[in-house]
Amino acid sequence: MELLRSARPHPKEKLKNVIEWFHWLLREAELYDVRYPVKGAYVWRPYGMKLRRNVEELIRRVHDETGHEEVLFPVFIPYEFFGKESQHIRGFEKEVFWVSKGGEGGERLVLRPTSETAIMPMVKLWIQDYKDLPLRLYQIVSVFRAETKMTHPMIRLREISMFKEAHTVHVDREDAERQVREAVEIYKRIFDEMCLAYMINKRPDWDKFAGAEYTIAFDTVLPDGRTLQIGTAHYLGTNFTRVFEVTYLDADGTRKLAHTTSYGISERSIAAMLITHGDDGGTTLPPKLAPIQIAVVPIYYSDEEMPLVMKFVEEVVAALKGAGLRLHVDDRRDKTPGWKFYYWELKGVPLRLEVGKRDVEKRQVVVTRRDTLEKYAVALGELVDAVRELMKAVEDNLRRRAWEELRSKIVKVQSLEEAKKAIKEGKVVEVPWSGDNQCGMKIQELLGADALGIPMDSEASIGGYDARDLACGERRAELWLRLSERY
Amino acid sequence: MELLRSARPHPKEKLKNVIEWFHWLLREAELYDVRYPVKGAYVWRPYGMKLRRNVEELIRRVHDETGHEEVLFPVFIPYEFFGKESQHIRGFEKEVFWVSKGGEGGERLVLRPTSETAIMPMVKLWIQDYKDLPLRLYQIVSVFRAETKMTHPMIRLREISMFKEAHTVHVDREDAERQVREAVEIYKRIFDEMCLAYMINKRPDWDKFAGAEYTIAFDTVLPDGRTLQIGTAHYLGTNFTRVFEVTYLDADGTRKLAHTTSYGISERSIAAMLITHGDDGGTTLPPKLAPIQIAVVPIYYSDEEMPLVMKFVEEVVAALKGAGLRLHVDDRRDKTPGWKFYYWELKGVPLRLEVGKRDVEKRQVVVTRRDTLEKYAVALGELVDAVRELMKAVEDNLRRRAWEELRSKIVKVQSLEEAKKAIKEGKVVEVPWSGDNQCGMKIQELLGADALGIPMDSEASIGGYDARDLACGERRAELWLRLSERY
Repeated sequence: MELLRSARPHPKEKLKNVIEWFHWLLREAELYDVRYPVKGAYVWRPYGMKLRRNVEELIRRVHDETGHEEVLFPVFIPYEFFGKESQHIRGFEKEVFWVSKGGEGGERLVLRPTSETAIMPMVKLWIQDYKDLPLRLYQIVSVFRAETKMTHPMIRLREISMFKEAHTVHVDREDAERQVREAVEIYKRIFDEMCLAYMINKRPDWDKFAGAEYTIAFDTVLPDGRTLQIGTAHYLGTNFTRVFEVTYLDADGTRKLAHTTSYGISERSIAAMLITHGDDGGTTLPPKLAPIQIAVVPIYYSDEEMPLVMKFVEEVVAALKGAGLRLHVDDRRDKTPGWKFYYWELKGVPLRLEVGKRDVEKRQVVVTRRDTLEKYAVALGELVDAVRELMKAVEDNLRRRAWEELRSKIVKVQSLEEAKKAIKEGKVVEVPWSGDNQCGMKIQELLGADALGIPMDSEASIGGYDARDLACGERRAELWLRLSERY
Repeated sequence: MELLRSARPHPKEKLKNVIEWFHWLLREAELYDVRYPVKGAYVWRPYGMKLRRNVEELIRRVHDETGHEEVLFPVFIPYEFFGKESQHIRGFEKEVFWVSKGGEGGERLVLRPTSETAIMPMVKLWIQDYKDLPLRLYQIVSVFRAETKMTHPMIRLREISMFKEAHTVHVDREDAERQVREAVEIYKRIFDEMCLAYMINKRPDWDKFAGAEYTIAFDTVLPDGRTLQIGTAHYLGTNFTRVFEVTYLDADGTRKLAHTTSYGISERSIAAMLITHGDDGGTTLPPKLAPIQIAVVPIYYSDEEMPLVMKFVEEVVAALKGAGLRLHVDDRRDKTPGWKFYYWELKGVPLRLEVGKRDVEKRQVVVTRRDTLEKYAVALGELVDAVRELMKAVEDNLRRRAWEELRSKIVKVQSLEEAKKAIKEGKVVEVPWSGDNQCGMKIQELLGADALGIPMDSEASIGGYDARDLACGERRAELWLRLSERY
């Protein structure tokens, strides 16, 4: 493998206008269609669907390997159940869709916005004693939220169509909280494979999941500096088990209330992946998840050259397919090589192989990395190894770049002026906070930004020195509070 | 491999009361829970979900291999679109669910009962010219029908949660009708792998899909003689393309209306599979689709025997796993071997392996086929081959039995009395029919049975001799009309 020339990757200028760029990518890469005539509901096109299915398989694999079992619950929840947990209904009732049959009274049903209240009454039937616990269930389904805010494709939806929701049941608080920590590890594994960078934040009380004791969230930072929540894990205590009477017989012969958790991720993670690895030429897909890992572009300038080139391409294809790689030969005759390069770069295919007459003579191919646009000459004999190595390099580079970018966006600030300036510059700020909810909400107001919560991925405690709460100057600051503009 | 003893398979007495037996199976085999508190909406439990996912993968594989692309459309359809095709809305409007947001007017949305009217407006945007055709899309989704009839688990649902709907677009009638025939071949492949037997019937005009030119249906016969529709394929002509203005630029430079088809199957096919291969001991799953293909039951009668047996079991497991077989070792210590045999037979695991002390000494295992309950002694060295052979034998036997059963249920009759008697005995009858719709509906009435339509899998034409229409004696019969009681 010989580096033919280093190259400048595509710039990221247009990407700064994230939503506009994202619309462009979804349309041009034929991933997703935003023209469906219902607010907040969109269409997954075949190429997007293939990518999504690879992500779903990743999600399933990680959940299956960690003792979760897949189930499928109905989309309808009787209002009677939906309304049982008072915080839950208060949080969700404004954004729930109601279902009715034309002209009929009958049952009062809602479309699930999340499935705690569908799952609890069944779990109650399935659990007898402590040996049935922990119970770890998950499903990948559509959930529905009547968003009144502006909707965005794949990001803010009325039908979230790839909601992976896990629901777990435990003997006590300790085991449930252990599960929340495991959920965090599970999401790390998933996001790491997607080459995403993320903060882990314990949401402030006023922004936790409706019905939770506390919520831990994964937030990523988009190129415009606004953050995007890409996953949450909730410790639900006995809030749901109490009202649904989910109890178990303990080893000591007494009946006890179970403790539950829930945690979810959605197609937002795919949006984050497309945007994080995006540039003005399109995007780069992490090789393990790319529907097509290698686009092969035969290059010939006459009908005489064609059979020669195509015969060698067949050898190349046989070698790569034999190694289990996903590739596509772009043999369209009405498109130029340059057009094809543009096309596959747009679609984020991690590696491009060019085969021209000169390459055939040398029994080599030219491999281009999508992320850096670097070109390598590779002999056929070492192609499979080189491709594997380059795919690994692309993956590592995507992840490294994402983390560099994220880390560069987080700043600790001590004064209101600094904080405002940093927010304006598209940063995530960490400011001193007393821990008091009123003060925290006041900090939000003063900065015109949203609190993401307390860092779980770095030191949350302010430590020894005497800092003051950013909003309540009379109070000593105990914690760092992260804030940003949010999607 | 030595046949130790032939055996009598489980009887099929209880199975004659199909629905009651099916409730029993779903509950006892922990496949599906019917206790969810919404009419016609049920819960897939982990074991059922694993089976379902194998069936989904089969469906995806066959569609992908035949040029279909997976997509995902929203569940909401604007009423404006849903109502465009007059026959379609007439057929579906009574059983459609409406969606509203609490207290809000706004868009009038329905939950899709099927997606023709969601897909057409997008397909219109995607198709430019004849080179974009044929277009073959499919999705596996939930669809919703406000059934007023009695609902049955997995069979008659208000949320059909595994609706595979394919939608295809073609240049002309000829190509669209070719696609309908291909859909029939696709469904044959799927049902053949599920070891199902089926009739293929062209539905009478009065029972075709709302909006179709004609409908071809797959019907299977359940043990009580009632038939179950397990798949349909529709030629839709230009009925939908006309109202949605789906046109393409043809090679001759003129704009033409496209022709479309749609075809669907659902979790009903899984219900049919569980019931067809059912007996009073549970069911037998086709080995290729079974989540667990082999249940291994170690047998020991003392703590001294245990390590000896378990060590040999490890060798057995290593051999089978190395061959890519899906197996489970049931090493529960609080259950007897007999209890475990019953348990795995219930769940339909195709092969059971017993390993006792005597087997360890002989370095053999005892293999029991679920379908016949025949037992074989197999030496460890030939285990993998024997297991493969026996799985193939189970599969072939399930399919053969299903077809024998189905064929034995179809009878040609010429008189009203014979026909009534046969229907009463749980048969599918073929009676002489003129082809006139009024006469056909009268035949239905006279027999108290439903017309399945004209056979597509055997000679539909009556041929030379002078038969009379069963209801309209003054008319000469041209065709055989199939009728049965139906689910």
